[in-house]
Amino acid sequence: MNYRTIAHTVGVILQFEALFLLPSLIISLIYGETRSVYAFIISAVVSLLIGILLTYVVGKNDKMIYAREGFAIVAIAWMAISAVGALPYVISGELPNYIDAFFETVSGFTTTAASVVTDVEALSKGIMFWRSFTHWLGGMGVLVFLMAIFPQESGRSIHIMRAEMPGPTVGKLVPKLRETARILYIIYIGITVLETLILWAMGMTFYDALLHAFGTSGTSGFAIKSDSLAGYSTSIQWVITVFMLMGGVNFNLYYLIFARQFRSVFKSVELWVYLAIVTVSTLLVAVNVSPLYEGIEETARQAFFHVSSVITTTGYSICNYDTWPDFSKTLLMLLMFIGGCAGSTAGGIKISRFILACKSIVRDIKQMLHPAAVSGIRYEGKKVDDKTIHGVNAYFTFYFIIFFVALLLISAEPFGFETNFSAVSACFNNIGAGFGAVGPYGSYAAYSSFAKIVLSALMLLGRLEIFPLLLVFTPIFWKAK
Amino acid sequence: MNYRTIAHTVGVILQFEALFLLPSLIISLIYGETRSVYAFIISAVVSLLIGILLTYVVGKNDKMIYAREGFAIVAIAWMAISAVGALPYVISGELPNYIDAFFETVSGFTTTAASVVTDVEALSKGIMFWRSFTHWLGGMGVLVFLMAIFPQESGRSIHIMRAEMPGPTVGKLVPKLRETARILYIIYIGITVLETLILWAMGMTFYDALLHAFGTSGTSGFAIKSDSLAGYSTSIQWVITVFMLMGGVNFNLYYLIFARQFRSVFKSVELWVYLAIVTVSTLLVAVNVSPLYEGIEETARQAFFHVSSVITTTGYSICNYDTWPDFSKTLLMLLMFIGGCAGSTAGGIKISRFILACKSIVRDIKQMLHPAAVSGIRYEGKKVDDKTIHGVNAYFTFYFIIFFVALLLISAEPFGFETNFSAVSACFNNIGAGFGAVGPYGSYAAYSSFAKIVLSALMLLGRLEIFPLLLVFTPIFWKAK
Repeated sequence: MNYRTIAHTVGVILQFEALFLLPSLIISLIYGETRSVYAFIISAVVSLLIGILLTYVVGKNDKMIYAREGFAIVAIAWMAISAVGALPYVISGELPNYIDAFFETVSGFTTTAASVVTDVEALSKGIMFWRSFTHWLGGMGVLVFLMAIFPQESGRSIHIMRAEMPGPTVGKLVPKLRETARILYIIYIGITVLETLILWAMGMTFYDALLHAFGTSGTSGFAIKSDSLAGYSTSIQWVITVFMLMGGVNFNLYYLIFARQFRSVFKSVELWVYLAIVTVSTLLVAVNVSPLYEGIEETARQAFFHVSSVITTTGYSICNYDTWPDFSKTLLMLLMFIGGCAGSTAGGIKISRFILACKSIVRDIKQMLHPAAVSGIRYEGKKVDDKTIHGVNAYFTFYFIIFFVALLLISAEPFGFETNFSAVSACFNNIGAGFGAVGPYGSYAAYSSFAKIVLSALMLLGRLEIFPLLLVFTPIFWKAK
Repeated sequence: MNYRTIAHTVGVILQFEALFLLPSLIISLIYGETRSVYAFIISAVVSLLIGILLTYVVGKNDKMIYAREGFAIVAIAWMAISAVGALPYVISGELPNYIDAFFETVSGFTTTAASVVTDVEALSKGIMFWRSFTHWLGGMGVLVFLMAIFPQESGRSIHIMRAEMPGPTVGKLVPKLRETARILYIIYIGITVLETLILWAMGMTFYDALLHAFGTSGTSGFAIKSDSLAGYSTSIQWVITVFMLMGGVNFNLYYLIFARQFRSVFKSVELWVYLAIVTVSTLLVAVNVSPLYEGIEETARQAFFHVSSVITTTGYSICNYDTWPDFSKTLLMLLMFIGGCAGSTAGGIKISRFILACKSIVRDIKQMLHPAAVSGIRYEGKKVDDKTIHGVNAYFTFYFIIFFVALLLISAEPFGFETNFSAVSACFNNIGAGFGAVGPYGSYAAYSSFAKIVLSALMLLGRLEIFPLLLVFTPIFWKAK
């Protein structure tokens, strides 16, 4: 294991985190929030110093890195930026308990937006900006962002990108990795700017518009009001719905649109399945909740908004859907597991994995009936090898084993089965809001510190798709080859 | 598809079901229950006539059958015996609704023992005997039983046995199939007789002893008292615990004990993992529930009994564990998914699948770190091929997709998430009793007919390990080759 190159890269990332703290500092200065100003200055200095120490004293910039180092960098970097990113909350005194602050930061970077803040409107503008900025940074992957702006040898980048990008590796835009990362980030920034301007034009303050654009394009969903988006106009709610849905689409498709390859976009099986699931779920929920609302517009808006919010794992709300009938709640719970498209900013198991799983099942059935026949699996015009299929099935297996272990670990918390189950689901799938005590109008504040650590680990496992994080906690990972 | 040989075999099985109805008829005669006597006579005649019609008029005894016919026979036979086995409940008027009766019969044959009977002590002795007899018959597999006593060409038997036996096909006693089936049934009957005699000697009536032996050796657990086993002596409860645990062991191990191959028994990884899970779970539950009970014996008995009852998917109870703290309830819920050993009468996903899944994960991690290295998986001293590993992972994938679809289908039922989740779990894993409204002192009576059909299908899917039943509902299954 090349420890020094790991230290070097993690150090560089922490130096960038110091830079990322500056916009929040500026916001604090603008609003004259003295405590936040100090908090951001101290945090940035700490981040910078640890970063410099790791990069230039402990670490060394080796050219060659292998898969192991790639996994280690991703896992350690995510934990490190969360550990340091928690400092402003603690120093400003707005979340004095470090575990609470760590939970909130992990929740941000992983785009989960599960919150321990019980009165969100009491947060200072600076801290609230940092909170929203973390989940925007996490949306496309902090490390992919670095690759986009920071020249590195391709060996390092490919291992990092492989470990950090969501979804099974089918049909990625791999040839020019840095170029790809840069284009993805331009698209991401473009969508964010567009949404900010639209929301601003529709009557939100610029601050609110920007923070909601952060929350939507990263499909993260930290609310900045106690009632999330319920207090905004219905047209704003419709706009947010559309942008949430856009965040759940594979970003490669936006690239293809810019490259005028419209045919490839229309041929995306995952896109059609995604839209089909959203449409059918919206109709089912609308029928189920229609007695609660007046008129078609309100019913459709409520159903469409929350289906989009949950399947894209954003987690915004425009009503307390925890009071909805069980059918709709169960459907939303299942959509959490499905999640968005691979290569999107959404969490969950990902639609492409479900498609591949179903294709694998059909092939297995065929082979049971005709053991001699051999049939391959095709997906989006390409042959899928057995290794990818194995990866998908193994992911499901592993996903559910981790899910149930986590559920057991937090089952002693006094909130009952539904709340605990939905908390595990909402954290592991990076949604944030669940049901019951952790529902849209609840928070994770009442969970014990132990549970908060378990749920933080789950958020990281979910965001990094299990393996990078898990690997670094296995003994064989650190054993010399 | 060879329809005539399917009809032939299903017809033979229905003729045997007529025979299986006779003991219940005798019990009804002994207790002078006129309505039950007529119910069993009519049911037996109907079963015999349909059986003769299918065997000799519609069907034909072809020598050659393929995997497809094997699956079709298993799936159709299980549905047919349940459809006919429901008649005594309806004709006697004790469960006048046919869907209720069908649910109860499927629940019996699949050894689930989920019940729609709200006052079990009001059942006649004859009907109660039939109810318990179905789950005893289902324990080792109705069709395996037939192979044991009824000479058939090996082609048919091997396909039927493969489709009906629980667990992944690793280390089965395959060489002499009929011989194996016969030995397994002798062991099964031996355990039942032994338990009956012990319980009888300990003060149960012979009738109660026999029915509890049926419920224990099949790991099924239809209660014959309103409070299940809570009213019996503590020593009886201990004895039942041990017999439940015995039912969760791979029956091949009993064969090995008789063959004096003790070394092979001690080398069974699955057995040790099974015992380890039971031990650790018992300790955890005991610590968690200790404030509720007086003294070590009661605490240990409560914990050990219910851990054994749930992991072996029996479902007996000696208290209302639905009132236990959430940690213990969640742990029991997870044990439902684990289930017993492959080749036992228990349901669930099976311990061997979990072991293979974990081994597969470890291999995947190794391969991620050293992509060039190729490592095989060994289990119980044998090399496991990739097809088996794929089968295990695909089983998990498929299992959870079916689980969540079923959960959604019954989510409109007015019992809340916990009850519905546990109902799906208890039926799919063939336990019976869940939590909340379907807890140990509850019943499935209040579920809608639609939900009862969904849950019946789940019980069959669980007992037949998904594929045989599912296959016959796919269009490609019936398409000509």
